[in-house]
Amino acid sequence: MEKVTRFGVSIKPDLLKKFDKTIKKKGYTNRSEAVRDLIRKKIITEEIFDPEFQSIGTLTMIYDHHEGNLTDKLLNLQHKHTDEILVTTHIHIDHNSCLEILVLKGKVKKIQKLAENIKAIKGIKHGEVVITNQII
Amino acid sequence: MEKVTRFGVSIKPDLLKKFDKTIKKKGYTNRSEAVRDLIRKKIITEEIFDPEFQSIGTLTMIYDHHEGNLTDKLLNLQHKHTDEILVTTHIHIDHNSCLEILVLKGKVKKIQKLAENIKAIKGIKHGEVVITNQII
Amino acid sequence: MEKVTRFGVSIKPDLLKKFDKTIKKKGYTNRSEAVRDLIRKKIITEEIFDPEFQSIGTLTMIYDHHEGNLTDKLLNLQHKHTDEILVTTHIHIDHNSCLEILVLKGKVKKIQKLAENIKAIKGIKHGEVVITNQII
Amino acid sequence: MEKVTRFGVSIKPDLLKKFDKTIKKKGYTNRSEAVRDLIRKKIITEEIFDPEFQSIGTLTMIYDHHEGNLTDKLLNLQHKHTDEILVTTHIHIDHNSCLEILVLKGKVKKIQKLAENIKAIKGIKHGEVVITNQII
Repeated sequence: MEKVTRFGVSIKPDLLKKFDKTIKKKGYTNRSEAVRDLIRKKIITEEIFDPEFQSIGTLTMIYDHHEGNLTDKLLNLQHKHTDEILVTTHIHIDHNSCLEILVLKGKVKKIQKLAENIKAIKGIKHGEVVITNQII
Repeated sequence: MEKVTRFGVSIKPDLLKKFDKTIKKKGYTNRSEAVRDLIRKKIITEEIFDPEFQSIGTLTMIYDHHEGNLTDKLLNLQHKHTDEILVTTHIHIDHNSCLEILVLKGKVKKIQKLAENIKAIKGIKHGEVVITNQII
Repeated sequence: MEKVTRFGVSIKPDLLKKFDKTIKKKGYTNRSEAVRDLIRKKIITEEIFDPEFQSIGTLTMIYDHHEGNLTDKLLNLQHKHTDEILVTTHIHIDHNSCLEILVLKGKVKKIQKLAENIKAIKGIKHGEVVITNQII
Repeated sequence: MEKVTRFGVSIKPDLLKKFDKTIKKKGYTNRSEAVRDLIRKKIITEEIFDPEFQSIGTLTMIYDHHEGNLTDKLLNLQHKHTDEILVTTHIHIDHNSCLEILVLKGKVKKIQKLAENIKAIKGIKHGEVVITNQII
């Protein structure tokens, strides 16, 4: 069984009441759980601001597969980065549009650089990165 | 062949110089292309701020599959939302951690609500949503 | 003297260790204080997502005071919104550029609408809003 | 009189139509103006991502002036940074709460560091930074 530590938080009753209301709305069943999630998010945010931090990212992008030789360019680029690109999920949104999600692994700065390069390819209509990590 | 319209942009030379430098760094080969991308992003941003807008989202999340009956809860929830959840990609990050990406479809407000509900499930360590759409 | 309540948080030692490292770097002297700040931010984030919430915002903007009749337009607009605009701070950045900060009060949706209208005035080069509230 | 250059943008009619709708809603009277604003924002975003870039920031924060010796701490810190802190605007929100806006000048990384240090002071309830610059 895994060990668990405890620590206490002192807080004004009014603030606690607001917090309870917020977490209840979110579906949490106890404060400890909600605070742990806040702590995790805080740590992840700190870490993913560190360009040297080993991390995981997803790049969500929309493109038109009819556009020039975009599909070839994307494939070439992805094959040059097999160390960083773990997997690609592709969805046919409509006749023209593709949604593609790349899972990227590496230092934060490398993930951001690679995502920037991909987003700048002609024909990519919109792209956004989420950086996360597995944390403890 | 697809029709294309043209319009002119008047701009101070200094600002244009800065723009040229920026887009060159990003890998664009001409201004027209770079401006189109700015326009697309502007429109997408507008649309995804409209809660009633029909849209596509991806939820990136990290969880520990050992945590309680999280996997069951996630599966149940996903099966209740087969209309909104198009596909799920799952990656085993390490012994404990899973990265899961859900592709969600529906009105912006519905995507956000569903993502919030999933992120609030006990054991989800971090989750973030990207909202996009296929635009023209 | 103000009453203070306490509640306990159970957490895995590894995660707590990471948290301690993070908050130490930020200058916190104890966990309770750091957790309270996380809780406050969580509540504020929730509230400022609610368009009906009574709130405070600051609009930071840069403009060129030589541009057309921008200064007049801004003054007119501000005088039409004396209920919402509490105060304006103006700084002369260089020969051309002004930094102006407006403090706005009202429902989140009203603050956002007003800020959007101001940012769209010709000559405003860049503008960004921060929404906050006094919370408990 | 100031010189102005022109360049052309080729774009699909459907996308242009959507753009026209968006900018009309925002109050723009012509496309050129709207595109210039997009270009400016793009450049500012690029520049403020560069930690070495000379820039201007505003820190909006809420605090309780009854909290310990917060006011003293803030004043001391501000006097240690007279080079970076241009001006402070202070508003009494209610009996307890103060809204304070600091205008900061310096390299992006210095502004961010200083803002982080201030936000971490005990009693600061919420703080957020906007980074901008006067651009051309």
